[in-house]
Amino acid sequence: MLQQGKDLLTEHGYHGTGLKKILDTVKVPKGSFYNYFESKEQFASEIIEQYGRDLTKKLNDFIEQSRDNPLDTLRNIYLRMVADIEKNGPKGCLVGNLAAEIGASSELCQKSMLNAFVSWKTPFTTLISDAQTKGLIRDDLGAEVLFDLLWETWQGALLKVKIDGKTEHLIQTVDVMLYHLFLPLTSGENKRI
Amino acid sequence: MLQQGKDLLTEHGYHGTGLKKILDTVKVPKGSFYNYFESKEQFASEIIEQYGRDLTKKLNDFIEQSRDNPLDTLRNIYLRMVADIEKNGPKGCLVGNLAAEIGASSELCQKSMLNAFVSWKTPFTTLISDAQTKGLIRDDLGAEVLFDLLWETWQGALLKVKIDGKTEHLIQTVDVMLYHLFLPLTSGENKRI
Repeated sequence: MLQQGKDLLTEHGYHGTGLKKILDTVKVPKGSFYNYFESKEQFASEIIEQYGRDLTKKLNDFIEQSRDNPLDTLRNIYLRMVADIEKNGPKGCLVGNLAAEIGASSELCQKSMLNAFVSWKTPFTTLISDAQTKGLIRDDLGAEVLFDLLWETWQGALLKVKIDGKTEHLIQTVDVMLYHLFLPLTSGENKRI
Repeated sequence: MLQQGKDLLTEHGYHGTGLKKILDTVKVPKGSFYNYFESKEQFASEIIEQYGRDLTKKLNDFIEQSRDNPLDTLRNIYLRMVADIEKNGPKGCLVGNLAAEIGASSELCQKSMLNAFVSWKTPFTTLISDAQTKGLIRDDLGAEVLFDLLWETWQGALLKVKIDGKTEHLIQTVDVMLYHLFLPLTSGENKRI
C-alpha cells in the first residue's frame, strides 16, 4: 500500500492525490484505510518514512558492494539515479517534491522528511570523508557541508529537469560538482569532462 | 489579480489552490474570471510569466544601482532574498515550487517556467562573467555552467529550509558556493567564513 502511495504522491503531489484516487489504487475501502491511518497526512508521513528507510538501505548495500574508490562510488550512485529517471521519467524525488508543496504546512510530513534526510546523510558523508582522506575531494570544507551542497544541487537539478525536460544535465551537474568544484585545492587542473 | 494569485500559488501550490479560493481572494465572479483566463492552468501560466518579468526587472535595477564588485553584488542579491524569506516565511520560489508539483504535468506552465528561468539567466551570467574577468571567480568553467549550479543549489537550499526550518543555512550555502567553490583556482585559500 505504501509503495503504491509513494508512486501516486511522487507523480501527482500531495493535494493532487485525492483520497479517492488512493483508495481506488490501493483497492482498500475507506473504512479499512482509516483503520491503518488516522488521516491522509499520516499516510503521506509513513510513506516518506518508508521511502527514507528504503533509500538508505539501497545506498548502504550499493556502497558495501562497490569496488571503486569513494569518489567514483559517489558518482555511480548518481548515475544509477539518473538511469532510473531516464527510464521512469523526471518525476523528481518524493522528499523534494513534497518539501516544495507541503514542507511549510504539514509539521508531521516535515518531521518525516527530516528523518529521511538525516538517514541519507550518514552513508554520503562517510563516502565523502573517505574520499577526503584519500585526497580525492578537497578537505578545507567538512564532509557534512559538502553533502548538504551536493543534496541541494541535486534537488535543484531535478527541478530544472522538470522545467526544461533535459535529463542529460543531471550527470553534468554532478560531474561539475564532484570533478571540478570538489577537487582538492592543490590539484588545480580539471581532471574530467 | 496576478499578484494575489502568485501569493496563493506560492503558499498553497497548484492543486492546493482551488478555483473557489482564487475567486474569493481576487473578488471576481467565476464568469468574469473566464473572460480573462481560459483555465486555472492558463491563470497559473500568466502568473509565472509575470513573476519572471518582475524578478528580472528587480535584478536588473539592483545590479544597475550596485556600487560593489560583481561578486559582492551577487551575494547581496541572495542576501536580499534571504531577508525576504526571514520576513515572510520559507514559502519557497514560485517557479521551484510549481516545477516540483506540476513541471512534469503542465506543458503550458512548464513553458512559462522556462521563460522565467531564461530571463534570470542573463543578469546573473553577466555578473558572473564580469567577476571572472576581474579574477574574483574561477574561469575554468563557463558563466552559464556556474549560474546553473548556483540556481540549482539555491533551489535545493530553499527546499531544505522547508524540511528543517533553518533559514540561516541559506546564506551559508551561498557563501560556500561563492567564496569557496567558485574561488579562482590560483588563490587556493579560503577568504571568507
